Amino acid sequence: MGKTLTIGIAGGTGSGKTTITRRLQRQFENRVCTLYHDNYYRAHDGLTMEERSKLNYDEPAAFETDLLVRHLAALRRGETVNGPVYDYTVHNRSPQTMTLAPAPVVLVEGILILADDELCKSLDIKVFVDADADVRILRRIVRDVRDRGRSLESVVNQYLTTVKPMHELYVEPSRRRADIIIPEGGYNEVATELLIRRIQAHLEEVNE
Amino acid sequence: MGKTLTIGIAGGTGSGKTTITRRLQRQFENRVCTLYHDNYYRAHDGLTMEERSKLNYDEPAAFETDLLVRHLAALRRGETVNGPVYDYTVHNRSPQTMTLAPAPVVLVEGILILADDELCKSLDIKVFVDADADVRILRRIVRDVRDRGRSLESVVNQYLTTVKPMHELYVEPSRRRADIIIPEGGYNEVATELLIRRIQAHLEEVNE
Repeated sequence: MGKTLTIGIAGGTGSGKTTITRRLQRQFENRVCTLYHDNYYRAHDGLTMEERSKLNYDEPAAFETDLLVRHLAALRRGETVNGPVYDYTVHNRSPQTMTLAPAPVVLVEGILILADDELCKSLDIKVFVDADADVRILRRIVRDVRDRGRSLESVVNQYLTTVKPMHELYVEPSRRRADIIIPEGGYNEVATELLIRRIQAHLEEVNE
Repeated sequence: MGKTLTIGIAGGTGSGKTTITRRLQRQFENRVCTLYHDNYYRAHDGLTMEERSKLNYDEPAAFETDLLVRHLAALRRGETVNGPVYDYTVHNRSPQTMTLAPAPVVLVEGILILADDELCKSLDIKVFVDADADVRILRRIVRDVRDRGRSLESVVNQYLTTVKPMHELYVEPSRRRADIIIPEGGYNEVATELLIRRIQAHLEEVNE
């Protein structure tokens, strides 16, 4: 296998970064491997469920990013990795793992991936997906209230107490590290095609 | 000749849009044709030099954009166009014209190109090149004072009285029409390569 092309896809909650990531994954299937930063939330086996539910999950320290960086390096070397899986229902890392097979293109998706120096150095293309804050919170409300059965009050409360302040403190400044900024993420056909063409060119180069 | 790929490259003064445009033009030579919006500044033969020097050159109405749109359509049809040339020394259109030959890729460069509805509709990829306002004015000062021999006072005065207010009124809002936003323009290697690969893919499709 030839050189690995690594693409980081960052952006705030509801920005459309997951939509674009899934589209690229679907388009190229096993020629693309995706690492989701959310799966690298720290394990907190020593804490009770109540203690875990009160942690701040919207700051860089919530993630075991050095493990993700090591996994990315292993994939680059052609090694298969046992990636962690996060279980939202218990706010803790799941006992199961997922097999991540090396591929010519590796995507790394997450709100805070561009806030980490080491991770940034491992990414060939750094994408920041952007959308207005009002559009993003509307998408989050629909997702959490309608699709995940949470109360509107809890979503609003979480957004105002941690999601928004952490966005302004960490996510928004990390935009400056992006190589390109994509408005509207997966709904942006022109930008998605640019990434598709770039991946296609890489696959041709490595004869995949 | 196959379908024409049209790419608009917009952004404020000093954003780096000309640098990226010239790099793409140089890379692909006669397979790319570039239209500079600045060459479509309106002719003002009926005004004196003093009257012309007092006009606002930083608003959309300063340009004959419908002529540019017609020229772009003609190039798409495979026709050669006699493009206007603007003479900054007399604040008026030059009597000479430039021959613009059709090419599989046409670039349209200018501060205000995304502020025009019709022009936007003619562009397949709309790029907005971005840089902080302080970096942009520093580049403009260096260009105008050192390279063009203007006084610092006149550059500062023009910037504060028309360039900045018109930027906020027209250029900044036009960013919303962009498909991708590129920080730092021609100095951004990763983004430049994305556009290069996109153009290469198009040239392969049309067998150029």
